[in-house]
Amino acid sequence: MANTKILKPAENAHQYPLLIKQLLMSGPRYNPEQEIVYANRSKYTYKDLVKRIHRLANALTDAGVKPGDTVAVMDWDTPRYLECFFAVPMLGAVLHTVNVRLSPEQILYTMNHAEDDVVLVHDDFLPIIEGIKDQVSTVKTWIQLTDANQAGEVSFDTHGEYEALLAKADDHFEFPDFDENSVATTFYTTGTTGNPKGVYFSHRQLVLHTLSMAGSIGHFDEMPLLRSSSVYMPVTPMFHVHAWGVPYTATLLGIKQVYPGRYEPELLVDLLKHHKVSFSHCVPTIMQMMMATESIKTADLSNWHVLIGGSAMTKGLCDAAAKLGIRLYTGYGMSETCPLLSMTHLTPQDVTLPLEQQTPIRVKTGVAVPMVDLEIVDPDGKPVPHDGESKGEVVARAPWLTQSYFKQPDKGEELWQGGWLHTGDVASMEPNHTLTIKDRIKDVIKTGGEWLSSLDLENMISQHPAVAGAAVVGIPDEKWGERPYALITLKPGENASEEDIQKHLQAFVDSGDINKWAIPSQMRFVEDIPKTSVGKINKKLIRDQIQD
Amino acid sequence: MANTKILKPAENAHQYPLLIKQLLMSGPRYNPEQEIVYANRSKYTYKDLVKRIHRLANALTDAGVKPGDTVAVMDWDTPRYLECFFAVPMLGAVLHTVNVRLSPEQILYTMNHAEDDVVLVHDDFLPIIEGIKDQVSTVKTWIQLTDANQAGEVSFDTHGEYEALLAKADDHFEFPDFDENSVATTFYTTGTTGNPKGVYFSHRQLVLHTLSMAGSIGHFDEMPLLRSSSVYMPVTPMFHVHAWGVPYTATLLGIKQVYPGRYEPELLVDLLKHHKVSFSHCVPTIMQMMMATESIKTADLSNWHVLIGGSAMTKGLCDAAAKLGIRLYTGYGMSETCPLLSMTHLTPQDVTLPLEQQTPIRVKTGVAVPMVDLEIVDPDGKPVPHDGESKGEVVARAPWLTQSYFKQPDKGEELWQGGWLHTGDVASMEPNHTLTIKDRIKDVIKTGGEWLSSLDLENMISQHPAVAGAAVVGIPDEKWGERPYALITLKPGENASEEDIQKHLQAFVDSGDINKWAIPSQMRFVEDIPKTSVGKINKKLIRDQIQD
Repeated sequence: MANTKILKPAENAHQYPLLIKQLLMSGPRYNPEQEIVYANRSKYTYKDLVKRIHRLANALTDAGVKPGDTVAVMDWDTPRYLECFFAVPMLGAVLHTVNVRLSPEQILYTMNHAEDDVVLVHDDFLPIIEGIKDQVSTVKTWIQLTDANQAGEVSFDTHGEYEALLAKADDHFEFPDFDENSVATTFYTTGTTGNPKGVYFSHRQLVLHTLSMAGSIGHFDEMPLLRSSSVYMPVTPMFHVHAWGVPYTATLLGIKQVYPGRYEPELLVDLLKHHKVSFSHCVPTIMQMMMATESIKTADLSNWHVLIGGSAMTKGLCDAAAKLGIRLYTGYGMSETCPLLSMTHLTPQDVTLPLEQQTPIRVKTGVAVPMVDLEIVDPDGKPVPHDGESKGEVVARAPWLTQSYFKQPDKGEELWQGGWLHTGDVASMEPNHTLTIKDRIKDVIKTGGEWLSSLDLENMISQHPAVAGAAVVGIPDEKWGERPYALITLKPGENASEEDIQKHLQAFVDSGDINKWAIPSQMRFVEDIPKTSVGKINKKLIRDQIQD
Repeated sequence: MANTKILKPAENAHQYPLLIKQLLMSGPRYNPEQEIVYANRSKYTYKDLVKRIHRLANALTDAGVKPGDTVAVMDWDTPRYLECFFAVPMLGAVLHTVNVRLSPEQILYTMNHAEDDVVLVHDDFLPIIEGIKDQVSTVKTWIQLTDANQAGEVSFDTHGEYEALLAKADDHFEFPDFDENSVATTFYTTGTTGNPKGVYFSHRQLVLHTLSMAGSIGHFDEMPLLRSSSVYMPVTPMFHVHAWGVPYTATLLGIKQVYPGRYEPELLVDLLKHHKVSFSHCVPTIMQMMMATESIKTADLSNWHVLIGGSAMTKGLCDAAAKLGIRLYTGYGMSETCPLLSMTHLTPQDVTLPLEQQTPIRVKTGVAVPMVDLEIVDPDGKPVPHDGESKGEVVARAPWLTQSYFKQPDKGEELWQGGWLHTGDVASMEPNHTLTIKDRIKDVIKTGGEWLSSLDLENMISQHPAVAGAAVVGIPDEKWGERPYALITLKPGENASEEDIQKHLQAFVDSGDINKWAIPSQMRFVEDIPKTSVGKINKKLIRDQIQD
């Protein structure tokens, strides 16, 4: 460690710790009358948001919540959830955003593992809780959330209903200062094997992620994605990495926010049209669902910017969106990284191109955002050349990466090697610092001594006009080690044969994009491609199914 | 302190400290070929910037600089200075930005007080150094900076010339990680009494100030002030609060930067025109000088946005700028605050107004930027109402405020009271959170039991068409306690009498803006109004001169 002039405690006595309460100051100051909308149900202003957060803090304190406790939430994407994003950590408690798409057994596992003290649960999830309640070990208090006039029927005692509790709570709470390294949030990431793993983020980490996002999203485009006149609607669950952290950023900047509740494609498109939404983020599947609705045909989409993450954005999806006037951006990160690591970077020259010609830039994984140190390395941890060809594992340093897995320090040791977080993603990097993810390390298809990217193949297959989606996995092969195997879904009313797809891929062989041996040996046309609870292709399940 | 779940060291082992080296990552990644210009002399790219910073670190290390040492710079506003902004702190050393406008005695005082180890000095300041060198107590090494082919003649030994040292240095330096609370920069702020006081900022503070600035400047306007296609030219000395921290922000975002060297108005306007500068910042005096040049008449100024700070922006200046199409913004802060605390906030509705009608919004002190907690308080430290009328002292909390004065902890205790930094400024706050500075506490004129804002009076006088500038101070008066006294400068070729000014002010009395007793009892027309070394009106000197 360098022998720098470190401020002694007395010389640094008035240092303001980085706390989530600071993220709530500027938005309501800039735009006190700005709206926060709950689907087609209700709306209120930023001024109200502040009051409701104070009320919620009082209500939770009345319910027995103390600093250091864990408060779990099971809700759809609502302004209530946004209030919890602030009030729970601001109290000094830990917010556990429960993944409601997990199986009841997994939800039970995460509640017990996180040691939840209080759970806020929406009517729609009461049946799950009824089924597991007797095995929940640490929860002392249940609070009900409802979108009806009256909370749902429940067989056990609850502390009351959210709105009723807020109504009788005082609208001023004195939020304390505390150590910025206090845990603010936790949630569970599901691998394809084993139990879910808990990641956790401190106040400091969330503040820094928010500031970097505010400084980066949109400075590099013809229009900033988040500015005073923007309208933001998340289409990524709030339980999943705090909806990628964007609600914190939108609140910091005082931007209009529209929370859709449940993800019904027609509702989403209606909200989009009605509120002139300018910025959203979602996984490719949801984007496809929205683009397939009838009502989108009559929408003006020329001001809708969508950050795509979760899985790679295909050229096919980006082209189709461009035809509708929608601007898609790739965002890259993972649960462990809070999540933002890199995103599409368009130069002033790039944005003068016709939108359709921007696809090759938009489908890349983008450039690391401010404060992120990113490298691609070989199995020995040595950087590989940034030549756009060489492949290496993406590793990162940034001030907002999960430090380990909760109560599983051994797994954390796999995650962190040599001071860098190892993402498990394989990518190339161009001389201009643009990253392109090629595959998950474990999904790379090793055939004939070469590494073949399953993502590249999926991308190429999805460019066939009849294809809606594709998943490619490696299956064991005696001669070649592994051979690619493709699952394909077709667009409604479209038709294609295995031969059609092979012909389509042959064109990529002819143009030198892939080798002949990259064409999948086997294909299967299916109704649905198996996905994980957060919408990623479940390749482990596919491989298991093929084995069976 | 709340009993939160604080991460134990083992649970937080991979936390990335906030270091200035992180501010240098994203800009060169986003725009490696982006230009950094030195007046009409030379230019290079961001790629070159990175290499030169690495070379400088090697050159300084060769010159004996170690972590914890202090490296002073005496230079004009140049890309060299920008290189020092990064290389010196990234080494773990402290950058002392010497105020070259101080008297030689004061420069000597600051060098000895800061305990400078190495000084980088431009030819133009060698005469100062020749005069004080024998009394400089800690400096071991001198490095010369020049804009000529050969460095200036000097009577003592130097380590060499900057460019020559860089030319022979290696372009890779392994910058270490260290404690984010290490001092990164220091400089001296001059009051009107006593010796200059040293403020200091840590790596952490500068990183956070930069991130907040990146997230705030320009999200709240029709066009972001700092975005990919912006061109930035500072017109505030780099020795003065790191040119308000904007060079760090511009570098973070990869924006084109134009460094003007010396502040010759014609040169500044030429650079402005040639490079289509879109963002600058300066004090009102410099703005006036630039607006008075011949060449500005042929410039397209419709894309020039200027942040005005240092002293209050008058309505007269803002109106005159608007007539030329220039957009002025008020920025508020001080040396002790790194400096940004608040800035003009325009809503999407505000910017639809004709520019001339935006003046009343632009001349206000603005809204606190993200992460700044700001209050106005009475002498007991209690908040006064936010009604746009009540006056209180501005106090602040933010993660980037100087913690004390170097080796003067007693002065730091005056600065920090009750956990808040006391600015010494008196202001009112509107219900919509807009701040308006009324005066310095010590410049408020106490007359007949009322507090009269000297700034308000100066503003009103300056709206007279013949007036170029005004300074109002309180002078002792037996009957009223104090009475206002005005110094006035007239525009070239214009004329006005004391009676004209009184008539002009009477209109404000008639409209109820001020009371009759606010009209200055005495006025004097002068050639120049005394200013401090950073361009503020020197009211102490004016009061002293009047007493004499």
